[in-house]
Amino acid sequence: MKKYVIGVDLGGTKITTAISSLTGDIIEKTTLATGSALGEEVVLGRLMDSISMVLEASQIKEEEVRGIGIGSPGPLDSKRGVIITTPNLPFRNFDIVTPIRNRFGIPVFLDNDANVAALGEYTFGAGKGAQNIVYMTVSTGVGGGAVLNGRPYRGNTSNALEIGHMTIEPSSRHRCNCGNYGDVEALSSGTAIAKRAREAVEAGLETSLAGLDSITSYEVYQAYLEGDKVAIEILDTAFDYLGIAVANLILAFDPEIIVIGGGVSKIGKLFFDRIKESASRRCFSFMVESTKILPSELGQDTGVVGAIALGLIESENK
Amino acid sequence: MKKYVIGVDLGGTKITTAISSLTGDIIEKTTLATGSALGEEVVLGRLMDSISMVLEASQIKEEEVRGIGIGSPGPLDSKRGVIITTPNLPFRNFDIVTPIRNRFGIPVFLDNDANVAALGEYTFGAGKGAQNIVYMTVSTGVGGGAVLNGRPYRGNTSNALEIGHMTIEPSSRHRCNCGNYGDVEALSSGTAIAKRAREAVEAGLETSLAGLDSITSYEVYQAYLEGDKVAIEILDTAFDYLGIAVANLILAFDPEIIVIGGGVSKIGKLFFDRIKESASRRCFSFMVESTKILPSELGQDTGVVGAIALGLIESENK
Repeated sequence: MKKYVIGVDLGGTKITTAISSLTGDIIEKTTLATGSALGEEVVLGRLMDSISMVLEASQIKEEEVRGIGIGSPGPLDSKRGVIITTPNLPFRNFDIVTPIRNRFGIPVFLDNDANVAALGEYTFGAGKGAQNIVYMTVSTGVGGGAVLNGRPYRGNTSNALEIGHMTIEPSSRHRCNCGNYGDVEALSSGTAIAKRAREAVEAGLETSLAGLDSITSYEVYQAYLEGDKVAIEILDTAFDYLGIAVANLILAFDPEIIVIGGGVSKIGKLFFDRIKESASRRCFSFMVESTKILPSELGQDTGVVGAIALGLIESENK
Repeated sequence: MKKYVIGVDLGGTKITTAISSLTGDIIEKTTLATGSALGEEVVLGRLMDSISMVLEASQIKEEEVRGIGIGSPGPLDSKRGVIITTPNLPFRNFDIVTPIRNRFGIPVFLDNDANVAALGEYTFGAGKGAQNIVYMTVSTGVGGGAVLNGRPYRGNTSNALEIGHMTIEPSSRHRCNCGNYGDVEALSSGTAIAKRAREAVEAGLETSLAGLDSITSYEVYQAYLEGDKVAIEILDTAFDYLGIAVANLILAFDPEIIVIGGGVSKIGKLFFDRIKESASRRCFSFMVESTKILPSELGQDTGVVGAIALGLIESENK
């Protein structure tokens, strides 16, 4: 009887791997440095080591494990198990699934960070029990994932829910790293908030942010709380745009729940209140009212718990 | 052996009903006046008459029919089989499914126009063979439907793919019937195109449209073809916005195919070329390139063929 699942959160700086029961209770967890600069084979080796470590520490045999889920930054091809390219990992068109499956004899599943987070919230977090959830992360970038009709939704090229690059202000002067102007990420990511603040300082506007060595969305929020007018303007604008993005997601997906995670969402009540206000102005009220907009419940553990959910859900269908 | 399906296209002016084989070949078809002004029971009676008529004409027995699909304007609740309200039909919170099922002893399924069109294109039209398709109609309004992971996608309240009300120009002065400003419908529906043209005429701009008694998107297109600068500006702007909407749909759903139907799409090559150009500027090129953007193949028959597809797909899962 296969009673366990392994989840691997593969990040640019560290690999976190855990083994859990089928209900998601973590039995052993380990974290290793990724060693990205050392190349594909070293990182793959460390990833496999981390799997061996949780198996040994828990005294669970390979035959007892139903699946291994791996969450990784993308773009990647989850159907083929290939990491296509990613700025912080050495892999280039690298089939990461086959060598791990061959080594351990366990089915292995790969998906991108945001999809894995969506699966984690759906299985163990704020989206539990729902049939249709959209997950959105607002951090340095803005991304997302979804579970629709009770199944992971990835789309044709594994790139569905690229929320950050949806255009919501076409004539905006704010450019995104993707080359587009006025998309959600360019207007309301943590990076965008910090950038607006630095621009305000450079333009000589009167703000308490002027004296700081470095500005992130956290400092802008602190200044907001102290009543700094520039900070208030910047955050209100960013949250207005996030509300438009949320309204558009409600109109597109009509989900039961939108779960929002990522660093900027840690602002909490103010963040969620403003987003709901803005979304209500931009969507049928019965649709906004029928959609719960909730903070991520998994927080720091999203990556590894989501990877466990991936391993669990996908191995169920094998 | 149940070898037939019935589809009903319930419209504000007429009811079209057809009986087909399981491969969608229409055996008999009939069209009746809806008689909306005569009230709920009369319209329901005519709808049932139309079903009896195609059964009789084809000499097919109730027991040989696997399912009846009904496409209707919304909002409606497809789970409960209830038409909630619609401007051109008398039904108000009316369970249309139960009386028809009781009368004929055949499973009955209800869905809105746009979802039914999506199912029709997926089963018999431009979306055949794909797993993930988005259907978009650009007519007096802008609406849509989707088939995702090979299943109809309706969302939590049966209102997914409300494409027309997604905001893409928040500071626009153009107001939608829904109350929002700068949504897709306010900027690029047939109604919006005609309205922009009338505003240009009223403002005294030099345009061949000035002499006309009535202006629809069709007249604007004719003037466009004759090189009328005002018409060119209006259509280019509308198609630019439609391209942004299409880019946002690609980023959200990553579909294999986006099928576009509705009156305005009949403009043809110019319409599709402009939309693709605009979408390419607003989306990762690999995602635009991996998505086919195709005209509706069902055209005039979308409603009834889509209803047949609904009856077929939903009865398969019973």
